[in-house]
Formats: sequence, C-alpha cells, structure tokens
Amino acid sequence: MEEAGYPLLSLINSPADLRKLPEEKLLQVCSELREFIIDAVSCNPAHFGASLGVVELTVALHYVLNTPVDKLIWDVGHQAYGHKILTGRRDVFHTNRKYKGISGFPSVAESEYDSFGVGHSSTSISAALGMAVAYKEQGITDRQVVAVIGDGAMTAGQAFEGLNNLASLQANVLVILNDNNMAIDPNIGGFSDYLVDIATSRTYNKVRREVIKGMGRLNIVGPRSKEMIVKINNSVKNLLTRQTNIFEGLNIRYFGPVDGHDVLRLAGVLRDMKHIPGPKVLHVITKKGKGFKYAEENQTAWHAPSGKFDKHTGEIIEESTSRPRPPKFQDVFGHTLVELAKQNDKIVGITPAMPSGCSLNIMMEVMPARAFDVGIAEQHAVTFAAGLAISGMIPFCNIYSTFMQRAFDQVIHDVALQNLNVVMCLDRGGLVGADGATHHGAFDLAYFRPIPNLTISSPMDEVELRNLMYTAQLPDKGPFVIRYPRGIGSNEDWRKPFAEIEVGKGRCLRKGKGVALLTLGPLGVKAARVCDEFAASGTELGHYDMRFVKPLDEELLHEVFSSYHSVITVEDGVVAGGFGTAVLEFMNEHGYNCQLKRMGIPDRFVEHGTQAELYKEVGLDMEALRRNISELLK
Amino acid sequence: MEEAGYPLLSLINSPADLRKLPEEKLLQVCSELREFIIDAVSCNPAHFGASLGVVELTVALHYVLNTPVDKLIWDVGHQAYGHKILTGRRDVFHTNRKYKGISGFPSVAESEYDSFGVGHSSTSISAALGMAVAYKEQGITDRQVVAVIGDGAMTAGQAFEGLNNLASLQANVLVILNDNNMAIDPNIGGFSDYLVDIATSRTYNKVRREVIKGMGRLNIVGPRSKEMIVKINNSVKNLLTRQTNIFEGLNIRYFGPVDGHDVLRLAGVLRDMKHIPGPKVLHVITKKGKGFKYAEENQTAWHAPSGKFDKHTGEIIEESTSRPRPPKFQDVFGHTLVELAKQNDKIVGITPAMPSGCSLNIMMEVMPARAFDVGIAEQHAVTFAAGLAISGMIPFCNIYSTFMQRAFDQVIHDVALQNLNVVMCLDRGGLVGADGATHHGAFDLAYFRPIPNLTISSPMDEVELRNLMYTAQLPDKGPFVIRYPRGIGSNEDWRKPFAEIEVGKGRCLRKGKGVALLTLGPLGVKAARVCDEFAASGTELGHYDMRFVKPLDEELLHEVFSSYHSVITVEDGVVAGGFGTAVLEFMNEHGYNCQLKRMGIPDRFVEHGTQAELYKEVGLDMEALRRNISELLK
Repeated sequence: MEEAGYPLLSLINSPADLRKLPEEKLLQVCSELREFIIDAVSCNPAHFGASLGVVELTVALHYVLNTPVDKLIWDVGHQAYGHKILTGRRDVFHTNRKYKGISGFPSVAESEYDSFGVGHSSTSISAALGMAVAYKEQGITDRQVVAVIGDGAMTAGQAFEGLNNLASLQANVLVILNDNNMAIDPNIGGFSDYLVDIATSRTYNKVRREVIKGMGRLNIVGPRSKEMIVKINNSVKNLLTRQTNIFEGLNIRYFGPVDGHDVLRLAGVLRDMKHIPGPKVLHVITKKGKGFKYAEENQTAWHAPSGKFDKHTGEIIEESTSRPRPPKFQDVFGHTLVELAKQNDKIVGITPAMPSGCSLNIMMEVMPARAFDVGIAEQHAVTFAAGLAISGMIPFCNIYSTFMQRAFDQVIHDVALQNLNVVMCLDRGGLVGADGATHHGAFDLAYFRPIPNLTISSPMDEVELRNLMYTAQLPDKGPFVIRYPRGIGSNEDWRKPFAEIEVGKGRCLRKGKGVALLTLGPLGVKAARVCDEFAASGTELGHYDMRFVKPLDEELLHEVFSSYHSVITVEDGVVAGGFGTAVLEFMNEHGYNCQLKRMGIPDRFVEHGTQAELYKEVGLDMEALRRNISELLK
Repeated sequence: MEEAGYPLLSLINSPADLRKLPEEKLLQVCSELREFIIDAVSCNPAHFGASLGVVELTVALHYVLNTPVDKLIWDVGHQAYGHKILTGRRDVFHTNRKYKGISGFPSVAESEYDSFGVGHSSTSISAALGMAVAYKEQGITDRQVVAVIGDGAMTAGQAFEGLNNLASLQANVLVILNDNNMAIDPNIGGFSDYLVDIATSRTYNKVRREVIKGMGRLNIVGPRSKEMIVKINNSVKNLLTRQTNIFEGLNIRYFGPVDGHDVLRLAGVLRDMKHIPGPKVLHVITKKGKGFKYAEENQTAWHAPSGKFDKHTGEIIEESTSRPRPPKFQDVFGHTLVELAKQNDKIVGITPAMPSGCSLNIMMEVMPARAFDVGIAEQHAVTFAAGLAISGMIPFCNIYSTFMQRAFDQVIHDVALQNLNVVMCLDRGGLVGADGATHHGAFDLAYFRPIPNLTISSPMDEVELRNLMYTAQLPDKGPFVIRYPRGIGSNEDWRKPFAEIEVGKGRCLRKGKGVALLTLGPLGVKAARVCDEFAASGTELGHYDMRFVKPLDEELLHEVFSSYHSVITVEDGVVAGGFGTAVLEFMNEHGYNCQLKRMGIPDRFVEHGTQAELYKEVGLDMEALRRNISELLK
C-alpha cells in the first residue's frame, strides 16, 4: 500500500486503532478508505458500488461498537470491503477474491471480526437474533449485535421471517437498513416504494427538524433524553405522515432516516442507540457507488465492474484479445429468449433481482411487459412461474444455481408435483470462480435428480443451450431444467437456426474402443480436446455428450456399456448423487460390469479463485482427464 | 349422506346450484355445511378446525364468484373441506384422505375447482399473482383471482415476497387474510400481534360504524359509491388508529376487518370488491373450530383430532389396544430433548410453528425460555439456529422432512459451510400417510447427502433415536441430521440410559450367508422380522442397521461386501441418490462386484392412504422384502 496516500488508514491495523482517533478525524478516515477501495478494485476487479456506499457507516460502526466483542453481521457481504480493510486485512486486500487470497465475503474462518459467514442475501437478521438469544441464555450482557441489511435484501422472505421473530422475542438486536434503493439492479416491489415514501416525506422531515431544535433548546442531554427525543420524533411522524412504519407495526422501534454519508451524525446516533434495549431499526440512506462519480451515475454497471478500470476516467480496461471471443452463456440465454418470445407469445421471463446478471435485461428492454424482475425472492419466483404456467403461459425462470437452493421446495411442491411446463434456467452451474464457496453451483444436479417429473439438462455449448431452450418451450414438455455455467462458452458462431432436441437423448461425438467418456455440460469441450490428443497418438476414445441427467438416454447407455470396458463420467457438479451416479445406478440396475470412474466436484466446500484454478484443484481439468483415461487404458 | 339432515346441501352439486339460492338461504347452507363437516370428520379423522372456521367465507366466495372460471386458491388447503363439499365432492367426502379417495388438500388433478395444488403454506399469493398476470398477458378479462391465506401462513417469507411483487405489478388479485390468530398452534410473532392490534382498535371500529351509517343516509348506492365508502373508511382509520396498515404501506388496498362468520356481510363485501381493480386485501376475522364448542375451546387439539369422536360429547374414541403401544417417535423426541436439556444448559429447541406436531410443546411447558416457536418460517429457523450455534448454544431444530425443503439453502449456506453444531431433527421422514403427496418426507436423504460436513442419521427405533440425540449434543459434532418417521415406533421400553453412538458406525444385527440386508431407519424392524422368518426355515440372512447415510460405515461395508454375494439396501426414502445409492457408490469406488438391489421409494409422487397401504404400493412392505430376498437367494 502507498502509505503516502493513506496517512491515517495506514495506521489503522484494527478497529482499536480507529477508536483511538478523535471523532473529527473520521472524515479523513472515510476519505482515505474510499480512495483505498477505489484504488484496490481498479486493479483487482471485484464488487465495488456497495462498499463505497457504506464507507461512512462502516467507519461509524467500528468507531462506536466494541468489535469484535460486539457482533457485526453484513448481509450478503459484498459491501464489507471497508470492514475488511479496517479489521486487519488492509495489507492483504490486494488478494481479494484471488486463489488462496482473502474471500470477497465475510467468513468466520478468515477473521474474528467476521462474526457470521454470508454470501446469499437476507440471512443477517436471523443470525443476529440467534446470537442475541444465545448471549441472553448464557447471561452475557456486554455485547451488541448489529445486522446491516440492504433494502434489496429486505425483499427476500427470510428477512421478513427474521423481523417477525425478532419482534416476538424482543431481543437486543440493532438492524441497520442500508437503503440505497438498489439491489444489484434497481430494487423492485412494494416495499421499495414504501421506503422511498418514508424517506421523502417532506412534512415529516420538516417537523422532525423542528422538534429536534425545540428539544435542543430545553438543554436535555445524555442518552436517556436522546431516547426521548427520538421517541417524540416517532410520534410526530406517526401523526403527520401518510403512513407510519412497517417496523413499528411489528413492534420494532424505528429510527431515521439518517444521512448515511454523514459519519459524525451516524456515530452520534449509533452511540445513542447502544443504550436502547430491544429490537430496533436504524434506517440509513446511502448512495451506491458514493464518491466515485461513474459508479454513482451507473450503479448497476458498477456493482461489480467487468474488469480493471482507470480511476480517473472510469474507463474499463478491456483485455485485448487477438480473435473474437465466444459469447457468455448468459447472453446467449438473454438473446435467445427474446428470439423465442417473438415467435411464441406464451413465453415470459422471470428473474429474482438478477436482470443484468442473467441477461434478462435484454428482454426487459425489448419487451418489458413480458419480463419480470420479482425482487430477491426465489421462492416466490418459482411459484409465480407455476401460477403462470398453470394458466397457459410458458415462463422461463432464470435463477443462479446456488440461489435455486432457496426455491427447492417450490420446485418440488408447485412445479414438479403439478407437472407444469416451467422452464428453469440455472445460470452459474458448476464452480463460479471468485465468488467462492457460497456461490458455487455445485449441488444442483444432485438435488434435482431425485425429484419426479423433472427434465434436467445441461448444454455443452451455446448452440446446445439455444436448442434446449427451443425444445423446452415446445408443447407438453413439463418442468424443464437447463443448467449452464458462468462465463463464456466455446462457440463464436452460435446464432444457428433452432433445432429440437429429443428429450432424454444424448449424442455420440466420437466412437472409440476401450474407454468411453460420458460428459454432461461444458466440460464436454475439454473432454473433446483430450480425445483429440489421444487420437493424435493413435488411441481412439469414445465420447458421448449425454445432455440430460434425467431422463437418461438408456438406449445410448446400453450401447456404451456393451461396447467399452471402461467408462468415465465427467460433470461440473458434486460427484455424490449427480450425473455420474445416475449412470452408475443405470449400470447397477442393468447388471453391467464395466469399470466406471465418476469425475466431479468432491465432497467438500470449494473456496474462491479463477474457474481454471478451481477446476484444476478439484481434479476436473484436462490434466486430470488425461490421467484418468491413461489409468483406465492400462 | 343423510339427505334428511342436509335438505339444502343435498341439492348443491356444484357452486352453480348454490348461486341459484336466494341470499337469505345462505345462513342455512352454512349451518348444514358445518354440520356435514362435523359429521364427516367425526367418523373419518382429518383436519377439522380450519374448515369449520371458514364455512361462511367458503359459502360467500362460491356464491359471489363465478367458480371455476374465477380462480380460488386456498393457502395450505386443509381449510378447504367446505370448498370440496360444495364443488361436487360431497358424496365422496367420506373417502377424504383415504387410499384412492379424495385428497385432504386441493389438487388440480382432482377437480377443476381446485385451481392450484397446495399443502405447504404461503404459496397462494405467488400462484395467484402468476395466474392474474397470465390472464392479463392473454387478454382474458372475465375472471377474478382470489387467494385465501391464514394469518399463520402470512408469517412465512414467501407470502411477503408475493405481496411485495403483487404490489409492484398492481395485478388484479384479491387476498383474503383469514385471521384466526392461529397457525396449528397459536400464531407467533410481530405480525400476529400487529393483526390483533388492527382488529381490536376500538376507536377505529366505532368511527368506522359511524362513517358507514353517515354514508348510508346519503343514499349512495352501487359499486362505485361503495368503493368510496371503503376509501373514506380507510382514511379515517389512518387518522385515528395508532398504526396504519402494512398492506397499505406496500400500496395494496386494505379492507376490513370483517366478521368472518357473517355470511351475508361477507357476500356483500365480496360483491363490492369484485369491481375494484388492482391488488387488495380483505381482512376477515374468524374463529378456528367455529360452531363446535370443543374445537373452539381447544383449537390446537382440534386442528386435526387424533381419532374419531362423539360429536355430542367431543370425546375422542380411542381405538382399544390389548397391550401398551410404543410411543410416537415425536414424543420420544420431545421427552428426550427435555432430559438432555436438563443435563446440558447449552441446548435449546426450535420449531417453525409445529410445537404440538413435533412435541416440542413438552419442552415449551417445562422450560419455556429455551424452546422457540419461530412461526411458519423454516428458512429463518435454520439460520436462527446457526446464529445460536455460532455463539455457543446447541440448537435442536425440529422441522418436518417435507418442510425442510424450504430451508435447504440455509442448511448448506449457514450451517454446513460453517460446520456448525446444529442438530436438525427431521420428523415425518418417509411416507407420512394421509397427508399425501405434498407431505411425504421422501427426498431428504437424497437432497442432504451431497452436502459436505453433514452427518446424516436415521434411527431404527426409539432407543436409537434417544442415543442419536444424546450423541449429537456431545462436543464438536458439527451439523447433525436425525431423521425419523411419523407415528409410533416399535419399542415400548424406550427410556433407557443414554449411550453414545460412534458417528458413522452401523451395527450388525445378524450375521448370515449369501444375502445381507443393509437397512436405514425404522424399516429395519420389518427387515428383522423377515430375517426371523427366513431363519425359521433355515436360511440365515445377514442384517445390518447402518444408522448413518453419511458418513458411511466403510469398515462394516468392506466386511459385508467381502462376505455376501448379494446385498439389499432398504430405506424409506427415494431410491435415486439416497442411502442405497451411497452404498452403490462405495461398492463402485472399491471395485466390489456383488449383486446389489436397492429398495426405496420409486421416482414418482406417491398419493395418500395409510402408511401401510402406501409402503405396500411402493414395494417397501414385508412381502416385497421376502420377494427380493428370494430372488437373490436363487
């Protein structure tokens, strides 16, 4: 780090150092911390806007709270860079999200200041409540528990479940609602509008100022009287605004809104609130990307910039490539859905708050009435899709594989049990790279395979993705899962005419002798290259792109198991219970006696790194393929 | 049916017949319908209180709506008996929940009047929104979409997600909030208190009456003016009650509360509301068990009475048994948890709204501060448990297997990834019987097995359950799943001293030759009996109670695969990916070449019936065991 550039920040090795500073220095700390984040992310692409938005809140929290004794939970956690930098990770922050480096999310394994691991949204209130109750049970009275949650994360049902229970238990939890009117994309739904209403109620704000002024004149000081002020403050608001407060309705005390970029005011409010027992919400208004004008102006693009950037011009520094690159799978999804929707007016698109992440934004621009961003609400997204399907539409519901874990029950109970034609597109299947353990799409094939009525497919390349999407919207296809990875595919020339793929039919890519590879999904491309290598040295392997985990292509499997002495299954999902296991079950049921080697993700959580680094680590790279093949050829 | 007893009801073969009646006859229809439900359930035990509570609402809805063109979705659906009886199923209602009879829940396969299948709670708003959007997209303007949801179901996050999106889309959906202040047990949480606040605000009610009186004098009639009345009504309420309305905060119009047992008033309000576009909530106050005094007085017990009853005395007619019966697994859980909690002050209990269903009510009575009913909120329940565990407690989180599907992501993301010592007790594992397809706990072994760090166990009997619970709370056990079935076990003499079970260790129950049975869970008891039979005729089979799906007892498996030519795995879960598959994977990885037959639940949804009928149907009864053994002995 350039110490010259960060004279105060360079002295802060833990929040204890921060707390030694006089309060007026906090402004400078914020300024340096913001600059540090900009510098760091400009050279090492990562989440960006969210952390810039909470610089002041982060500094105020660590200044006022006694961390790590006090517990601070960052919901989702991609806004916690400032927190990481202030809590001893400044000098390793350049390794953020890199292989063997620090995680892009808070993680208890990484630091005692990360009190609860996060990554998926809307868990913080539940976790905070658990902690507060645990301390109460154990008679521990010296600590605060604080959850910082965005307005986007508040739309997920779990946050509401947590609030509801928090209200019931009246535990000592401070919920800080970080309201920037955004998730990754602009926040959606009644609750979001509601927060805007509160925050912009001019009558209320005017009265509020006057009340505080009035109380000031009485010269009442100390926490107790401050509490009174806020109380009166709230009562006035109740009388004068059109609508009072959802939180208060739930019997959780509400304070705010407060300007989230006024660090001194934040510190003052937090100091006062420490002394108020029970559940309370502090509503803080922030701006995502605050202090970096390009990010302020285009918050979605700068949620996580796509590459390194010039911090002065805001220009993304694209890596130069010598030839055209294949498109991202997500963009193939986005463009193809629009093509299909133009041909079939029953098609609609659904995303739970990931329009730019899954490229449904393409459809939202072209045909906004038929593309639905339902908020961070995977459970709802799937049942909403079921309601659409049962009434004659064909919904393409796009959910990242890892987030589909949130809607597992709805897939079983609402879609599969009723055998509805919902197309579930799982983006980010397999290892996703830098987002790490919380975000890998490793489990999907295994958790969906036991569900009756599902068709489960994974395309090897972009053309296959298009054709599976085309197939899935043809009549009477039932619940149809199409699962594809993060990042680019292998085929620049992907805009081919649509062709139906028979459900449950794989394809032979290459016939051979001795050893056959059965691949599912894009690892098939690596496998094909390895087959080429072996062929070049005179060994002809068989290679079959199975396309479907369910139903399996039993005809093709009979052929394979009758023709080869050894079979290797290859998938970018967990090896326990996934595609290879399906093949193994087939083999067992039909009494075949081949050598079967199942390659997949092992039974442990995988950390972060590039996708290439991680696939190598877990033994799913070309080298591992060669090794396994050679072993079986012996 | 006794036509004499139901002169009007006997003429109603569909809602069209109901709609021919003059409005004043509705009172009598309600009275007969209530009597019919009481008569039916007194001879054929089923859900009870919920349907009694919505008799008037049911009659009013079908009277005013044009069902089945208009779409009516009953959240959860155990309150839909009146609906079933009025929609052509009166004469088959005696088959309710019986094998091959009608389902206890609405089901699209059963009737066109059941517009969306339900069973799990809180899906109705999402589904209704999907339908309303589908109709809009298709230009269909002739139909209403109505979701009836209880205040208990409103505490689940998905309901909030649905409301949030409904507000955003401003679709034509009427949500009827059936507020009886109960789930199965009394409803819990801030939201519940909040509804009570609304409903009991006397100022508001008084003003409301006077406003309506005043408007009445102006002689304004017709839907338009009625709408005005309710609007003013709401404004008055805004001014005069302490808190206004969560729904209005979300920009969903709120009407009520209305007496849910005044059928004429309900019909009137519904008729008016048909003409109001956009999302709206009608808040209806009902009493669970209404009209049957024993049920009104003890709503939890009469949610679903435990047997046939005398409708005059309210006495449950217990089936006489010649000898003491073994306890229910759930009661062994309940009593054992209290025993353990007395010894270990770190233990707490958690249930998402099922205290009497899982017998956590036993702990709630003895040590109320350490037993938490968190509302219908499985997602929250699991993360709350994770928060407790990370702060030093040992939570026993009891969730029905089928409902654990709702918390799948939280188990992965909050518990397993952080390797926390949360004990997840899955009641109702396997086929549950009369509740049918939506409620079977068939998938749990398969969906949990791919998750790293989990220990997954299933006890064969009550003593094993106790010992697994004892083991799970010993230090450093990590995430620990204990999965057991609905109903009674096999062992009256279950209060044995605790003994630790080594994690991942199965036990040999019987050594034999040729064929070995590897069982998991209570089917082991049937298997043991079959082994006795074979032994009696001179054939000694091996029998091993494996106890753990994960980790597998590899030492024991090596012994088994080295000693027998054939192995049968037996589990009460899906055969794809479950326990038998784990054994198959072991066999493949270690190159064993035995004959392996995996017995489990097949790859289709299983309907309702008694547990015995269903296990026979799917080939998991003693006869199927004998057949498979004989086959392998050949």
